[in-house]
Amino acid sequence: MQPLRVALGERAYPIHIGAGLLGEAALFAPHVKGRRVAVVTSTVVQPLYLARVQAAVDAAGGKPLAITVEDGEQAKSWETLDRVFDALLGAHLGRDALLVALGGGVIGDLTGFAAATYQRGVAYLQLPTTLLAQVDSSVGGKTAINHARGKNMVGAFHQPLAVIADVATLDSLPDRELRAGVAEVIKHGLALDAAFLEWLEANLEKLLARERGALEHAVRRSCELKAQVVAGDERESGRRALLNFGHTFGHAIELGAGYGTWLHGEAVAAGMVMAAELSARAGGLARADVERVRALVERAGLPARGPALGAERYLELMQGDKKAAGGRLRFVVLDSLGRASLRADLDPRLVRESIAAAVQ
Amino acid sequence: MQPLRVALGERAYPIHIGAGLLGEAALFAPHVKGRRVAVVTSTVVQPLYLARVQAAVDAAGGKPLAITVEDGEQAKSWETLDRVFDALLGAHLGRDALLVALGGGVIGDLTGFAAATYQRGVAYLQLPTTLLAQVDSSVGGKTAINHARGKNMVGAFHQPLAVIADVATLDSLPDRELRAGVAEVIKHGLALDAAFLEWLEANLEKLLARERGALEHAVRRSCELKAQVVAGDERESGRRALLNFGHTFGHAIELGAGYGTWLHGEAVAAGMVMAAELSARAGGLARADVERVRALVERAGLPARGPALGAERYLELMQGDKKAAGGRLRFVVLDSLGRASLRADLDPRLVRESIAAAVQ
Repeated sequence: MQPLRVALGERAYPIHIGAGLLGEAALFAPHVKGRRVAVVTSTVVQPLYLARVQAAVDAAGGKPLAITVEDGEQAKSWETLDRVFDALLGAHLGRDALLVALGGGVIGDLTGFAAATYQRGVAYLQLPTTLLAQVDSSVGGKTAINHARGKNMVGAFHQPLAVIADVATLDSLPDRELRAGVAEVIKHGLALDAAFLEWLEANLEKLLARERGALEHAVRRSCELKAQVVAGDERESGRRALLNFGHTFGHAIELGAGYGTWLHGEAVAAGMVMAAELSARAGGLARADVERVRALVERAGLPARGPALGAERYLELMQGDKKAAGGRLRFVVLDSLGRASLRADLDPRLVRESIAAAVQ
Repeated sequence: MQPLRVALGERAYPIHIGAGLLGEAALFAPHVKGRRVAVVTSTVVQPLYLARVQAAVDAAGGKPLAITVEDGEQAKSWETLDRVFDALLGAHLGRDALLVALGGGVIGDLTGFAAATYQRGVAYLQLPTTLLAQVDSSVGGKTAINHARGKNMVGAFHQPLAVIADVATLDSLPDRELRAGVAEVIKHGLALDAAFLEWLEANLEKLLARERGALEHAVRRSCELKAQVVAGDERESGRRALLNFGHTFGHAIELGAGYGTWLHGEAVAAGMVMAAELSARAGGLARADVERVRALVERAGLPARGPALGAERYLELMQGDKKAAGGRLRFVVLDSLGRASLRADLDPRLVRESIAAAVQ
């Protein structure tokens, strides 16, 4: 099938979506040519897919170095990044290096940031192996590591040469992670496309049962929607912020509960219900539609309520979030299902009420 | 006087050059507007110029946070960078932050890289206070920190909003650092502009005596030459590499002698003599011109000979240098004075001979 394309001028790139793509040397060949390659992966993904990718890169003319880092969010640290640099420098990879991110969102963010900053920037490929990474984090060039004071506080916008999303890798994904990925799929429908939202409502069980066709459609439509937004606003100065629907609340949940307690997608799910509550209070969304959001989140087996931290604590946690411009909190709200907008003028009282309406 | 301009499309920016500019609020006003400001400086520069810059930023409508880091090359470390991030996050600076680099090349590189990566990139100003930084490192958007395995191995291309070069700050510069800056001025003449080289030969004493007119001309012409090259090749895929004349040898000297033993400009000075020797051997440069290079370096009180590490050790050190593409060493050589070119085909024997001809 024709790849999607992220239209970013000289930084444009294809997104290939399909089953079995990780083994297709032809997809790697145009990028591997003339470059030295390093595949960065995690201890969990490495035994599952590294050999297949190495064989494909080999067949495409590369001889990849493999760098395996620990699994999980703690890998988005300076220490791990430094180990990646150390391996690259130890093997004398130069500015012509190609990094390959093989794994979920953590590996993509870490490897992307390594590529953005190794010798002032080298090329990289995204090979997402989780639903979250395939529908969201691998597309758009956002890369980052975490700081003790907050998630993704140190990073760069650095677009990959290509995204190769092999939906067959989702077969090995734990159920909880699959559902966390579905949260971002729901987000794309809610924020950008009412028809896709309806498709989701009709096909949620197929998606959760990992039917290949449903997975491919969900990944493809999510990437299409995201690619359109990113093409119009690469560095998130405007419309791209709409992709953060549910995320301001979600980040507060992740941070307040302690990183790792909630999966990102789980926090976003409860955050989307809070944001839907806020959308109703801010005047846009019908009450019935708030319940539609809540129902879909629950049907997906995702939490529709955040932890009971107290509304003030939520506000405090959100103040530290980088989306707060000049100290003023901005929220993505829904004017209707499938139509989001950015608001910086909301009464904190409405925010407190919306949190209270969706905590445990 | 009219500022110079680095023509980089939407990333274009002015370079203001003159005496007393650090106190001119009008230069800061257009950049400070609507932003929260943090000035990053070093323990040495802080007592000299921080108050002046703070007053100018204040008058321009900002209320700058000040972040002072240790002086010297060791500040180009992850640890120091992390302290900068910590201060920025602690004061809740968001994506609308403006960082101001007040100091020499180390502060510029560190602050520029902090700006490139803080919350995926914020704006910054360069306020260079050393000759080296004014004629070279503050212009062109190269930012970096060091890695245990090599200098500037982790960084980004990130252009400032403006460069404000106050030549009055050079009055406080130690003599040895002034001379190290002159090395990069000489480099611009040698690699790019024979007429400027002649001006330098005629005005070197005035420059070393810090005559304001000579300083301003040297800074302005250096910036002009560098700005032209950068505008044509922002990310150093071609012509910008010519600005590395003397640097492949120079980096080997810095690394081989142990960082901090030689100043960067001192290592570049001896490196330029080696590169001139190589240029003669590679067929381009007349023997008499090699001696002209050596004589000018010596008149500037700069070392014309590198440490006696042995030619093999030099080659080994250069192999680890990031300018080695795919393992092959590339050298910038002079076809004639003022005309450099990049060569990747040189016999290592010529390189060894050139090193031997310019070691202690």
